[in-house]
Amino acid sequence: MQEIKIGIIGYGTVGTGVAKILSRKSSLLSEKLKTRLILKTICDLDVRRKRNFMPKGVLFTRNVDKVLDDEQIQIVVELIGGINPAKEYIIRALKNKKFVVTANKALLAEAGPELMRLARKCGVDIYFEASVGAAIPVIKAIRDGLISNNVENIFGIINGTSNYILSEMTQNRCDFKSALRQARIHGFAERNFKLDTSGIDSAHKLVILSRLCFGQGIKLSDVYVEGINEIKLHDIQYADEFGYCIKLLAIAKIAGKDLQIRVHPTLLPKKHLLSNVNGVFNAIFITADLAGEMILYGQGAGQMPAASAVVSDLADISKRLAKIEWVSSQTFAPSQNRYRRISPIHKIKSRYYIRFMAIDKPGALSLISKILGKSNISICSVLQKGRHQGQAVPIIMMTHEAREKELRQALMRIDKLPIIRKKTVALRVESV
Amino acid sequence: MQEIKIGIIGYGTVGTGVAKILSRKSSLLSEKLKTRLILKTICDLDVRRKRNFMPKGVLFTRNVDKVLDDEQIQIVVELIGGINPAKEYIIRALKNKKFVVTANKALLAEAGPELMRLARKCGVDIYFEASVGAAIPVIKAIRDGLISNNVENIFGIINGTSNYILSEMTQNRCDFKSALRQARIHGFAERNFKLDTSGIDSAHKLVILSRLCFGQGIKLSDVYVEGINEIKLHDIQYADEFGYCIKLLAIAKIAGKDLQIRVHPTLLPKKHLLSNVNGVFNAIFITADLAGEMILYGQGAGQMPAASAVVSDLADISKRLAKIEWVSSQTFAPSQNRYRRISPIHKIKSRYYIRFMAIDKPGALSLISKILGKSNISICSVLQKGRHQGQAVPIIMMTHEAREKELRQALMRIDKLPIIRKKTVALRVESV
Repeated sequence: MQEIKIGIIGYGTVGTGVAKILSRKSSLLSEKLKTRLILKTICDLDVRRKRNFMPKGVLFTRNVDKVLDDEQIQIVVELIGGINPAKEYIIRALKNKKFVVTANKALLAEAGPELMRLARKCGVDIYFEASVGAAIPVIKAIRDGLISNNVENIFGIINGTSNYILSEMTQNRCDFKSALRQARIHGFAERNFKLDTSGIDSAHKLVILSRLCFGQGIKLSDVYVEGINEIKLHDIQYADEFGYCIKLLAIAKIAGKDLQIRVHPTLLPKKHLLSNVNGVFNAIFITADLAGEMILYGQGAGQMPAASAVVSDLADISKRLAKIEWVSSQTFAPSQNRYRRISPIHKIKSRYYIRFMAIDKPGALSLISKILGKSNISICSVLQKGRHQGQAVPIIMMTHEAREKELRQALMRIDKLPIIRKKTVALRVESV
Repeated sequence: MQEIKIGIIGYGTVGTGVAKILSRKSSLLSEKLKTRLILKTICDLDVRRKRNFMPKGVLFTRNVDKVLDDEQIQIVVELIGGINPAKEYIIRALKNKKFVVTANKALLAEAGPELMRLARKCGVDIYFEASVGAAIPVIKAIRDGLISNNVENIFGIINGTSNYILSEMTQNRCDFKSALRQARIHGFAERNFKLDTSGIDSAHKLVILSRLCFGQGIKLSDVYVEGINEIKLHDIQYADEFGYCIKLLAIAKIAGKDLQIRVHPTLLPKKHLLSNVNGVFNAIFITADLAGEMILYGQGAGQMPAASAVVSDLADISKRLAKIEWVSSQTFAPSQNRYRRISPIHKIKSRYYIRFMAIDKPGALSLISKILGKSNISICSVLQKGRHQGQAVPIIMMTHEAREKELRQALMRIDKLPIIRKKTVALRVESV
């Protein structure tokens, strides 16, 4: 089987995640790609600190040349962040004809087009799915899925820290400072949180998305930026009274002949889907001329979501490098199933909503609940509608989790009771 | 520039959409792909009916051999739907070493794995992004974006007609029949709506998604199916009283060693994002081991959304067929910009939420609104909080659309008034 050797520069949270996936999912990936992705070298300034994951057989070094000058390494994963020395390393990798995968939004916002041009000149390419929205495949969605579309606007909640703080303020009626404290306690805000709350991080990501949608000429300095530091709790409350919530939105939209590109706290109607994106989640709302409206929602940060995006880029590159015949159906889940069998419907467990139509007379409820109880179905709440002595009235129940098989048996028995006037309706409840 | 010739079989709504895109977006696509996608032949049984779009220089024929046996045609787009003769045509195309793009979910659900095996044997491939969720790039997201993930469950609203009917019943408190009538009036239900309301169409799509996520062994007969025909308005109302809404969900989830795979009306907590997917929109909620929770939302049907997905497949194939060097940044928006310039923030128009902190005394409101009026800012609603004669109280205003520049000038003037005690806060309102 063909092998592709990979070097990682920067072994922090995301780097460790990538190493974990390449090790733990190696057979899944080889089966899908008919190529073995092999992590050959990890470069990090700190080689002494004990790591929670150190893959076997991988060179761990402080010397970046061991990655950049290794002729066997075809893909360099840059995960150190910041402009320097990341930029220099990427330039050297490209000049050495290595593909580059990066999550470095600051660098891409600053120097993306320059690096892309260099990549093209060197006959290689740069992939950066992890730079925006982590595991949400927003880069691929715009670049490949919407390839024939003209995007008309983007509205993104693309900074998890800010969104967490605003959600906290909204839900717990606390002020900015104590929401920030919560964010830091829960690991959703870094020590240097200012890049997040000032809107700069969102601006970096917005520039990357905007270049994909509107052209490579867009610069970071084109973005108007306001952060959330000044948002007061009572603004959130008043906005609420008007039917709005406040979100830090990254907006790029075509307005006539102009492109508006800005990041600022924004009121959104509460019923809008983006208003319901809470906590550290990200969502990108895109309107395109052919596809219409689209939302991509998911975890915009975190070790494994970001690493998952990096590995999806590695897979894309490996398909380009593969000299073997590659067929897309290979990349479905392998046929040696992860499950043993298809679960027949009677085996599922669910909560149920049940509506009985029963004659309104004393003891009706007790008859029904007795049968349910015998079948191990326990009732969570009951609602009885109307009162028409001697007539059929609806009795609605919400159950705790029960087995479908037992539920059906119970309902069959109940439907034979003389007090029941119509076939009972049962619907499954999903908490998702 | 390299050329790739394409044949379409079935010139209905989606086929016409594909022809429109290939014609109207041809320069956009050639710039991105460095390849010209050329529609050479359209085959349809009905060659007499007047069409609203007939591309020039394209052979229009009843004879399917003109597509299937044309050696110049490298990609066949099958859009006739149904099992036969679509299956036979696809088999012939594959055997003639043509790539196939199809939106035919019924056929894929029935015979997908068999066709994929044949494609692999013939050294070509089948693409089917349009078969589920139209323009929502859900196939690519799972296949490529989540390549290293084990998907744990899928919850999908993947039939627009059913979702429209349930939304109508919920919002307008009407029964199934009149909601169906509305759906037909608005073109959201076909004459043969039973495939939709019975859940079968959702089952077709669920099988396709499940094979991607859980393995090729899954059969259509594995899916348990209940439709929405029996849903009564009062069930929707009672569910509402419990804090739930009713959606037709397509569910596939790993439960222990089993896979549950089912389509049925389902109660969902009203605050869940899927509960807010209304009308003909589709949404697919996916939980994966690395990426966590993800939602893809968009227009699940319609001429251009579906055609957009077909063309994204054509682009993917063209990248595989391309012998030239292809670089992913090419597929960003071209650099000859679609916009003339970046809009400076002062030029935008928006609605605004404004909070003044003003001394509570007679005439304060009039002073403020006079200045706003002079700057052409018209007020939509006002909320005055508290009453503390002589002290600063918040005055909150929601404006109609106004220019940022004029707003800022007005606020600067207002903030100089002696009655204003703090810098005024202004936030932009987006209706998205």
